[in-house]
Amino acid sequence: MKNVSIALLGCGNVGRGFVELVGRERPRIRNRYGIDLEIGRVLVRDLTKIRPGVDRRLLTTRALEVIDSDCDVVVELVGGVHTAGAFVRRAIANGQDVVTANKALLAAHGPELFEAAARRGLSIGFEGSVCGGIPIVRALHRGLAGDSIESIRGIVNGTCNFVLSRMEEGLDFDAAVRAAQERGFAEADPTLDIDGYDAAQKIRILASLAFDAPVTHESIIGIRSVTREQIDRAHAGGCVIRLVAEAERLPGGVTVRVRPREIDAADIFGSVRDEYNVVAIRGRATGEVILTGKGAGPLPTAAAVLSDVIEIGQLRSARVADVARAREGVRTSSSATAPRLVAR
Amino acid sequence: MKNVSIALLGCGNVGRGFVELVGRERPRIRNRYGIDLEIGRVLVRDLTKIRPGVDRRLLTTRALEVIDSDCDVVVELVGGVHTAGAFVRRAIANGQDVVTANKALLAAHGPELFEAAARRGLSIGFEGSVCGGIPIVRALHRGLAGDSIESIRGIVNGTCNFVLSRMEEGLDFDAAVRAAQERGFAEADPTLDIDGYDAAQKIRILASLAFDAPVTHESIIGIRSVTREQIDRAHAGGCVIRLVAEAERLPGGVTVRVRPREIDAADIFGSVRDEYNVVAIRGRATGEVILTGKGAGPLPTAAAVLSDVIEIGQLRSARVADVARAREGVRTSSSATAPRLVAR
Repeated sequence: MKNVSIALLGCGNVGRGFVELVGRERPRIRNRYGIDLEIGRVLVRDLTKIRPGVDRRLLTTRALEVIDSDCDVVVELVGGVHTAGAFVRRAIANGQDVVTANKALLAAHGPELFEAAARRGLSIGFEGSVCGGIPIVRALHRGLAGDSIESIRGIVNGTCNFVLSRMEEGLDFDAAVRAAQERGFAEADPTLDIDGYDAAQKIRILASLAFDAPVTHESIIGIRSVTREQIDRAHAGGCVIRLVAEAERLPGGVTVRVRPREIDAADIFGSVRDEYNVVAIRGRATGEVILTGKGAGPLPTAAAVLSDVIEIGQLRSARVADVARAREGVRTSSSATAPRLVAR
Repeated sequence: MKNVSIALLGCGNVGRGFVELVGRERPRIRNRYGIDLEIGRVLVRDLTKIRPGVDRRLLTTRALEVIDSDCDVVVELVGGVHTAGAFVRRAIANGQDVVTANKALLAAHGPELFEAAARRGLSIGFEGSVCGGIPIVRALHRGLAGDSIESIRGIVNGTCNFVLSRMEEGLDFDAAVRAAQERGFAEADPTLDIDGYDAAQKIRILASLAFDAPVTHESIIGIRSVTREQIDRAHAGGCVIRLVAEAERLPGGVTVRVRPREIDAADIFGSVRDEYNVVAIRGRATGEVILTGKGAGPLPTAAAVLSDVIEIGQLRSARVADVARAREGVRTSSSATAPRLVAR
């Protein structure tokens, strides 16, 4: 049994969900994956804030105390770009693997951070950064690794789903946005979601996983221009309007498109509402594979983060065993790293 | 760049698809995953059979010549249980990783083979053994590793889909089965599919990935008892009938159920036809995640097999690098094994 110690940066909604999940799932993970997870230190901004279920003795406001602690994996959930980037760089310099749910950080500094990690032989897990609980990063990078991806098409922004669903029920655009803000579905400044930039960031991350070519064309149209009349007209024809993000591999490069589209209400894409996301991946050999589920929310996102921590913990454990065997002159091999049926 | 040499056992439909895919995808895999795949020897039953796209110089009818060749990964696509099992045991004894699409072998000898592989620190990849091109094994074992799975529900048998769809169009049961046989959707003896045993094997494999508990209750009802009247009555109510396989974690064990069910035609499950499969996974934190795509066919299955070969090849490459570093006294670390964004 390998102990895997975790340094947690940030204890907001996803962070608290992560602490809760580690506590609840630890015996199962020990039993199934052969690693024992332990959260060492937790970085917070405010020590006095009440965080049910979080051991206050782990909390500190001093970032370096957390990152430079003797941990295996740094889980970055502070959000933002500048400070989070500095934290991740420090962890990599320390020889620690990193798991992050920070889409904005990857969009801004992904290539640099991944290269730095690769140079040190370290991993950056980011399943939680796109589409919450849907295991889309693994599907693209691992499950469909054997196939050439031709296109990706998704509904990946819950705020827009919520606003469009409320407009279908009769609200006008501004009232629907206010309803989204009241329900916690939209930020005080909803621009990033409403104008399609959040969806564009997500589809760009998925495109970078799917295609070996740069994005050469991009067009982003949000839902601000969608009118009640358009929605009613679509509805009369058995359709709904959703913000669809697409990336397609074409000769010479990748085209990314985000725009409101009319979709048959009976289609999987047409049935997606609120925090649900859907992504369709078209592979040359595989045809179309569709994944759908909750694309946001503290617990689904925390579960995705924890899945990355488990995979990295198993890899670390296997590496240590390999090196020990090599030092003893035993045949090179590794344990419990690839998918394996555990039948009982 | 690490060379990964593959010994291929079996060159039927999936085997030929695999050879085709390796040829086509090799430059992309080299570029993206940093490994160079090469098929060494190929075991066939009949040397004279025409296999377009397969280099005849690689073919042999002598199994040991293939398995005992100096290869890294043995890809088992001969099917059946007895001979295939002997081949896999030999590969494990040789210290080779194994990839198989052989559901029957896993159902019969999975626990023994996985334990033998684990003792040697080897992997058995089996993404292609369940639901063809849908990356469901990784979704359960990796993507949702951080969550407790509560239930799995799927339409996982294409033959039954085909038969039920033809009955919706007016054929009676026997004529629909004959149509399935003519189109290559059903075996000469369709019992395994029609009576629900194939679906039961698949849901048992998925259950063993999802749950840390044994199957304590099982009931299997196939589609032989479904009448045209039932289908018409369902249709009148906006429903279709499909063979649904379910596994649920209950106190004390896992319950597996396979039976024909009425499903709303507008539901994702209701829209599944022919070779398409759908699987819904309910996680305690994640909620429901649904995956759908082609559950059968030579190319989707071959792509899943190749995805496993790529992951195993990368793990092998990382292990070799680890051990080399350890021997040189350099810090322990591994390269390119966990999901990593490759941005260009």
